Amino acid sequence: MRHLLSTADLDRAEAVVVLDTAAQMAATQSREIKKLPTLHGRTVVNLFFEDSTRTRISFETAAKRLSADVINFSAKGSSVSKGESLKDTALTLQAMGADAIVIRHQASGAPHLLAHAGWVDAAVINAGDGTHQHPTQALLDAFTLRRHLRPGLGEDLAGLRVAIVGDVLHSRVARSNVHLLHTLGAHVTLVAPPTLVPVGVEAWPCEVSYDLDATLAAAPDAVMMLRVQRERMSGAGGGFFPSPLEYARRYGLDGARLRMLPDHAIVLHPGPMNRGLEISAEAADSPRSVIVEQVANGVAVRMAVLYLTLAGSSASAPIEETR
Amino acid sequence: MRHLLSTADLDRAEAVVVLDTAAQMAATQSREIKKLPTLHGRTVVNLFFEDSTRTRISFETAAKRLSADVINFSAKGSSVSKGESLKDTALTLQAMGADAIVIRHQASGAPHLLAHAGWVDAAVINAGDGTHQHPTQALLDAFTLRRHLRPGLGEDLAGLRVAIVGDVLHSRVARSNVHLLHTLGAHVTLVAPPTLVPVGVEAWPCEVSYDLDATLAAAPDAVMMLRVQRERMSGAGGGFFPSPLEYARRYGLDGARLRMLPDHAIVLHPGPMNRGLEISAEAADSPRSVIVEQVANGVAVRMAVLYLTLAGSSASAPIEETR
Amino acid sequence: MRHLLSTADLDRAEAVVVLDTAAQMAATQSREIKKLPTLHGRTVVNLFFEDSTRTRISFETAAKRLSADVINFSAKGSSVSKGESLKDTALTLQAMGADAIVIRHQASGAPHLLAHAGWVDAAVINAGDGTHQHPTQALLDAFTLRRHLRPGLGEDLAGLRVAIVGDVLHSRVARSNVHLLHTLGAHVTLVAPPTLVPVGVEAWPCEVSYDLDATLAAAPDAVMMLRVQRERMSGAGGGFFPSPLEYARRYGLDGARLRMLPDHAIVLHPGPMNRGLEISAEAADSPRSVIVEQVANGVAVRMAVLYLTLAGSSASAPIEETR
Repeated sequence: MRHLLSTADLDRAEAVVVLDTAAQMAATQSREIKKLPTLHGRTVVNLFFEDSTRTRISFETAAKRLSADVINFSAKGSSVSKGESLKDTALTLQAMGADAIVIRHQASGAPHLLAHAGWVDAAVINAGDGTHQHPTQALLDAFTLRRHLRPGLGEDLAGLRVAIVGDVLHSRVARSNVHLLHTLGAHVTLVAPPTLVPVGVEAWPCEVSYDLDATLAAAPDAVMMLRVQRERMSGAGGGFFPSPLEYARRYGLDGARLRMLPDHAIVLHPGPMNRGLEISAEAADSPRSVIVEQVANGVAVRMAVLYLTLAGSSASAPIEETR
Repeated sequence: MRHLLSTADLDRAEAVVVLDTAAQMAATQSREIKKLPTLHGRTVVNLFFEDSTRTRISFETAAKRLSADVINFSAKGSSVSKGESLKDTALTLQAMGADAIVIRHQASGAPHLLAHAGWVDAAVINAGDGTHQHPTQALLDAFTLRRHLRPGLGEDLAGLRVAIVGDVLHSRVARSNVHLLHTLGAHVTLVAPPTLVPVGVEAWPCEVSYDLDATLAAAPDAVMMLRVQRERMSGAGGGFFPSPLEYARRYGLDGARLRMLPDHAIVLHPGPMNRGLEISAEAADSPRSVIVEQVANGVAVRMAVLYLTLAGSSASAPIEETR
Repeated sequence: MRHLLSTADLDRAEAVVVLDTAAQMAATQSREIKKLPTLHGRTVVNLFFEDSTRTRISFETAAKRLSADVINFSAKGSSVSKGESLKDTALTLQAMGADAIVIRHQASGAPHLLAHAGWVDAAVINAGDGTHQHPTQALLDAFTLRRHLRPGLGEDLAGLRVAIVGDVLHSRVARSNVHLLHTLGAHVTLVAPPTLVPVGVEAWPCEVSYDLDATLAAAPDAVMMLRVQRERMSGAGGGFFPSPLEYARRYGLDGARLRMLPDHAIVLHPGPMNRGLEISAEAADSPRSVIVEQVANGVAVRMAVLYLTLAGSSASAPIEETR
């Protein structure tokens, strides 16, 4: 794998390799000493144009567990804020010998530009771009689904039925998941208020519903709740958004809705949660919630992605040897 | 030692073990290469809800000297500031596999909540919570006192007489020291303006004085000056605070007061100092000031605390082997 | 080399040793694994009183490539901003066992004070002080010039003709380069608007011109463009500064001026560039631009400086063994 820019770029076989590698990584993380020598001497740069402490420390942890050196480059207060272009930043990181660049950017497409403009030799890993993609989030979600519902290396998610619920319009998590889950054989239903469904959704490989209760009554295997960004509710959304109370009533996952689900169904959320808004405390803390496990799986998936992009053709060799 | 939350939790034997281990750590720090392999592969998270560069880099240095990986998590600009609860932050760090969490929080009791709510397996180390406790500061103070006045492993501070001077009301350093020094057998006198003595101080194991000169005339073995937080002097303190000039005159340590002390007495300050306010330049830079040494001892004490909390039952083995 | 404070402190032999060592370091940086064990166990503190992400990550990368531990200490939000003196900060870093302190400070002379006041044993490396010096920038410029125009270990820059163009008045890069290039035998011409030439420039070992076209017509071997700080153009400069349009027209390097240069001449810029102001996109991206290479050379030069200041008398031993 050269870069990881979008889940739409992954075919089924590639996606399964990432999940299988992540399973190997996860197995090493239950040991007392979790660190592997694999990427000793490699330099991973976290290039964050938007704050995202959770994603940054997940990648930082993954890189350090593989013994890579990590340089955190927050664009705030840097020459970027003095007007330096993405190109000049990229050339700087290239010249410094970055082996991988993990980029979070407010503009959709920035990671693709970084990867394909010929500025850098580094592997480029998209850690979230605008409202476009957040592929490692989708991979950790798929990894979590597989672990619970299709355990076993080599498996995909064929036949699984997954509901993704909330502000789909602004969600890169939803976009990334729709493509990846479809590629892996799952059937996805998006559930959102009519005003929060993106234009052109007809072309996405999924169904759309405005009725959460009807969707839950159809017995999905998993429900993935999206984070509501409260700042969008302030009215700046131009009437797109229901009130918090109405949102919670119509699209929030509470105890009653949880009890509509089949026994084996699981609940996911990318975090951080707004307890009482898109998810109640009862749902968040129920035994079928795998939200905390998703965070742990995030480290394993990011270890896998760093390994597969940096170890190159030697990626078929054992993961515990220095590359 | 499972966690380090408060000096009030330590009995005499436990406190002496920390000081003895710190002495072993300090001995390694006079070498040209100060790094030990002890905690290779362990992950220490600095979870700072308040800025404190000095404390953060002391813990970061201590962890790196023991070969641990360090993740700095400043709550500013993170999802915490978007309303994420301490619980969700804790579950995130747990899921990422943090072995120790060093927490600084503006709310008294936050470290106890983190340690005892069942959210994390990590060792929790209190790096300052509200006006409550700052146990590693008290341990480094005790270590410094022992080094000068009761040298030798296994010793406590029995019979030592220590004056702690300044804004006791707002000082977690004072609270932590009163308990620890008492446990180690020292006799403590708090010296403060009447308005800056906490309610309920009668129950503390120490004496209280309003008269610095009288206390110094009684020949203490050590004087510990507290930092005045200048912002409290602005009048926001509601009349609690004397003017800077009056404060310095009545409660500042200057050359004249320094000369009242016995020859063997030492002067401590947790830093950063307000030279000219609670301590004069003459006192700060005099040979009996051990203020700079306190900083070095802080690294040794924090190495000891990380070692004792992370190495667990193997803590009786040599400190220079990987755990 | 004990410290690196100013290029004015380096004699020809010392400067050539830095360049030769940097050449050795650069040779290791074309490998797949770029990391050397040389400074394992040493602690390098980046003490930055001004933001400068590019310089900070260059030093951080250099230190990590040599296996040193790095502590980033940004003075913003630290006790420094609460009024702590440089002395107290220095004593803190000394007590924590810093082996090298890389300092960026808005006040000219701060690194000299830090190195010579007797507060620290650490090697002090100036990463830019006020409008005074930025010695590693000048060394990387000289390294880049040598690589293209006088390749071969042991060589200096005798006979080279270099034009330095722009806001010389506010430029520590210009000051550092004039001294170093002169020491290495080059002939320097400063080109600037009359209002942006410093008082006392007559005493500098260089020529001064107000006419860029005349200077370029004299066929220099290299042209070094200085960064314009746009905030100075806002009128706050008190009429010192031409308008952006006039500046670009009279002192900007564009395609037409580029074509006036001899075939072998190269173009340098310390970055980040203001494309369209002091340099056109055509000039910035032309084959004779070595601007991106300068960034890579910056890592090699900083590795050399850290090595020479920290490895002390053993600096004649191979660079790939642990010191």
